[in-house]
Order: sequence, then C-alpha cells, then structure tokens
Amino acid sequence: MSYWHIDYHSKYQALTFEVTEVLKSIQSPYQKIEVVETPAYGKVLLLDDDLMLTEKDEFAYHEMLVHPTMFTHSYPQKILIIGGGDCGTLTRVLQHKTVEKVVIVELDEMVTQVSQEYFPQLVSSTQDPRVELIFTDGIKYVHNCTDKFDVILVDSTDPIGPAEGLFRLSFFQDCHKILEEDGILCLQSESPWIPELAELISYVNQDLKSLFPVVKAYGAAIQTYQAGFWLFQLASKKYNPLSKEIENKIKEADLKTKYYNPNIHYGAFKLPTFVNELLHEPS
Amino acid sequence: MSYWHIDYHSKYQALTFEVTEVLKSIQSPYQKIEVVETPAYGKVLLLDDDLMLTEKDEFAYHEMLVHPTMFTHSYPQKILIIGGGDCGTLTRVLQHKTVEKVVIVELDEMVTQVSQEYFPQLVSSTQDPRVELIFTDGIKYVHNCTDKFDVILVDSTDPIGPAEGLFRLSFFQDCHKILEEDGILCLQSESPWIPELAELISYVNQDLKSLFPVVKAYGAAIQTYQAGFWLFQLASKKYNPLSKEIENKIKEADLKTKYYNPNIHYGAFKLPTFVNELLHEPS
Repeated sequence: MSYWHIDYHSKYQALTFEVTEVLKSIQSPYQKIEVVETPAYGKVLLLDDDLMLTEKDEFAYHEMLVHPTMFTHSYPQKILIIGGGDCGTLTRVLQHKTVEKVVIVELDEMVTQVSQEYFPQLVSSTQDPRVELIFTDGIKYVHNCTDKFDVILVDSTDPIGPAEGLFRLSFFQDCHKILEEDGILCLQSESPWIPELAELISYVNQDLKSLFPVVKAYGAAIQTYQAGFWLFQLASKKYNPLSKEIENKIKEADLKTKYYNPNIHYGAFKLPTFVNELLHEPS
Repeated sequence: MSYWHIDYHSKYQALTFEVTEVLKSIQSPYQKIEVVETPAYGKVLLLDDDLMLTEKDEFAYHEMLVHPTMFTHSYPQKILIIGGGDCGTLTRVLQHKTVEKVVIVELDEMVTQVSQEYFPQLVSSTQDPRVELIFTDGIKYVHNCTDKFDVILVDSTDPIGPAEGLFRLSFFQDCHKILEEDGILCLQSESPWIPELAELISYVNQDLKSLFPVVKAYGAAIQTYQAGFWLFQLASKKYNPLSKEIENKIKEADLKTKYYNPNIHYGAFKLPTFVNELLHEPS
C-alpha cells in the first residue's frame, strides 16, 4: 500500500513524495535505515526518515562534491572520504586516473551493507583494490590519523546527531593537519535557503578561512535536498579552483557525467548575492 | 487553525508547508486566488492551489527573469510584460533607467487587486507614469499588437490552462513580429528536474531557435518552485547575453538586488550536463 513520505526541510516546510513500497527497514546501532521505492525518484535511501540519496538524482550531489576538488588539485593520489557509506562519492573519486589510494571512513557499517543490496552500482566501487573501507567515527579517525592525504571529502549527513562534529573548527583543524602541503578539503555544507542552515554555512566559512588561504563556496541544484539548492565549501592550501588551466584538464579527462562539466566547474562558484552576504564575500 | 498546504510538483512529489492563516480566498472568472500566511515564506500567493510567489523569495525569480535580459539589451526603452499581475517583474523592470514605457498585460485583474492588498511593495510600481496596465489575454494582445518593443518578458503560470498558449510556437512568432530589430524575448521556462516539464523545455528551445539567431537558457535556484531549480530562455535578435561588456554595465547600474549580480549574470548560463542535453547543447 502506498503512502506519502514527509522529508522535513525545516520545522515549517517539507518535501513529500509517494512511496509505493518499503524495500528495507532496519535499525542500526546509530539510526533507522530504510530503502523505499518511489515513482518520482526511483529507490530512495532514508536515514532516520531523512532523505540521503535517490537513484534518479544522486549524480548531482556526488559529482559536485567530488569533481571540482579533484580537478582543482594538480595530481590527487591519496584521498580520504569521511562518511559517504553509500559509496556514491567513492564511485566518482575512482573515475580519476591519478588516484592510488582511497580511504573511506563511514560510521555505520549497516549503511554500506544496505546500499550494497539496493544501490550495487555505487557500492561495487569498493571492490577496487585502491579502496580501504573503515567503519569507525570519522572525527576520531582524523584526530588520530598519522597518514597524509591530498584530498579530504566530507560526505556527511545533516549537522544533527553524530554528524554535528563534522562542521566544527576542531575537525577542520585535524583535517588541515593531515592534508599535504598542497591539500584540499571539501565538504557538503547544506542549503543557504533554510535560515538555520544559513547560519551554519556562515560560521563554517569563517572557520575554514581561519585555517586555509583559499576558501571558495559553490552551489548545485539538487532537487531532493533542502530547498533544492546546495552549497559546498572547498578549502585549499595552495590551488585555486578558478584557475584557467583546470578547464583543459576537465576536457581531456572526458569523464562520464550527468551534472558536472567544464562550464559548471566555473559557473557553480558564481553565487547569488544573498549567499555571498552569508559568506562575507563581494557580489 | 494551522494546516499544511500541499503544492504538487508532479503527480508523485510536492512541496508542503505550514499555513497559519488564510488571509484571502476568492474565485475570479479564471481561477481561485488565495493569500496565506506561512512561517517558512511569509505571505504566499496561490492560484488554483499552485504557489505563485512568496514574500521571502520572490526576489530570486523576478530578478532572474528581468535583469539578464535588461542588461543584455544595449538600451531597452519599451518593455512588454505578459502575465506578472503580481507586479514583481514590473518592479524590477522599473529599476532600469533607460525604460520609457512598460506595458503589462495580465489576464486576471483580480490577481493584481489581491496583490495590491497583500504585496503592496510590488504593486506600488503600477503608480509609475511609465506603466500601462492592461487586463486582457496576452496571447491575443500580442497577436493583434501594432506597437514595437525592445524587450518582451513572459511571466506566466505553469503550462496548464490559460498559460498553455504562452509556450507555443505561434505565440513566439507573434512576439518576434512585435520586437524591434534588436529586440529580446525572455520567458520563464519551468524546471528541468520534472520529466513532463523537461519535455516542454526541450520543444520551447527548438521553437525559439527556429525564430531567433541567439537562444540561451539559464538557471536559478528558486526554492519554492518545482524541484527548486528553474530555467529561463532568452531569445535575442542581435545581442549576446554573454558579451563581456555587460559586466561593466551591471556594475555601473549598481541596482539593489538580493540574487542577481555580475557574476551570476554569466554563471547562470553554465548549465548541468543533463540540462544541456535537453537543449541539444554541448557541455
């Protein structure tokens, strides 16, 4: 029997969509994990009732979290992914031929197990010999890590519960410490249309600017996330994501994508005035 | 007593938001017109239950319908607005100092009357002596018009019911006929995320390309419209919206905006690959 799921974007607004079948519903030590079938989006992964990814549009979020940073770095070899147990981020990282090693640190092993069953096209990437999958707390992992990385991608849930610490200065400091001298950190940073999240974007931006010489936010249209418009923040020790030579690298790599392209790489950094104001940037 | 309004974005998905008060609810000869108070968006105008504008984010849609075209034209003096009875588009057109005459053709006089009561900050623009407000069918008006315009802006409702004809080739042909030799037509053209609307975007683009030498689509993040991502199509007889000299004009005009700015002017035309595919454009 079908029903309409309600995905709250704030206390006062929500996305709602028809669910024709609950394919899986289990409780992990951390959260309720569900996969539902929907006419609008295909299969949808829900964590504690919050929409995490959909079969139809996961490409937009994952491509835009991964490719701008991977092309900004001149030669990214060692990559760390925090979160992202559905492996959509990992799948896009592995499209880059320079990659020699990817460590993916997911808190909840059952997210990956469920994803393997319902989103095998994403989780099959874990079979790549360059991948090391670790199930532990990403905050502690980064704090205790003695390795160095070229790129860190933070593919977190919303800043409530376990993911809250992934938006804090102390975590960014630890990331900075384990990045190489030309390393880049990129994180999903929520929707600027939602007042509570807009505040978060603003203070995350200030914290990143206190640590990295190059901090640039960019946006993407992701229909199933809050208000349909999502920000990412790229914090870099050396490389500028707006350098002109990146365009040719993107064209030469000729990756198979559905959202990201050479024009979007630059266009995504052009933000509306109200977002620039949150970031204390000129328009 | 509060309730949650459901604004369907397709048969299978909807935006839903809390309504704390119905401020107005009347039936015009064409449609049900309502204004409701909401914690998420302030006052909201609904036509036949479909969200038309919100106090909080109307700036995004209206600025992005108006300013890219007005700055692309070298000296826009005579402007025609089809639809837009809430006068948000008119308000932004009048920010441009070159404007000598604006004709606004709205089908439903009661939309403007209700807007005057609840969105006076927008409708006060009708007091400007340069404005002529005509209540009639925009399709017939354009068909029978003997005047010429520099810019035509189509601020229509969704392509269902009376607005359907505003997405047809015959209407675009009539617009082309009443545009000056360097005139520009710009229309809102729905969300590329929704399959039914994506089809429409594709055929509107083909029709415009059959008439105008320069046709460019651009996007904007509009949280309360379908899937939060909206396309516009700009069809121009002469001027290219990506010309470099536009940047300086925007800076010099220094309009008060909350979304549009010189970077967004160019960035908005950089579209995701799946949208370029709809438009048969390279990525």
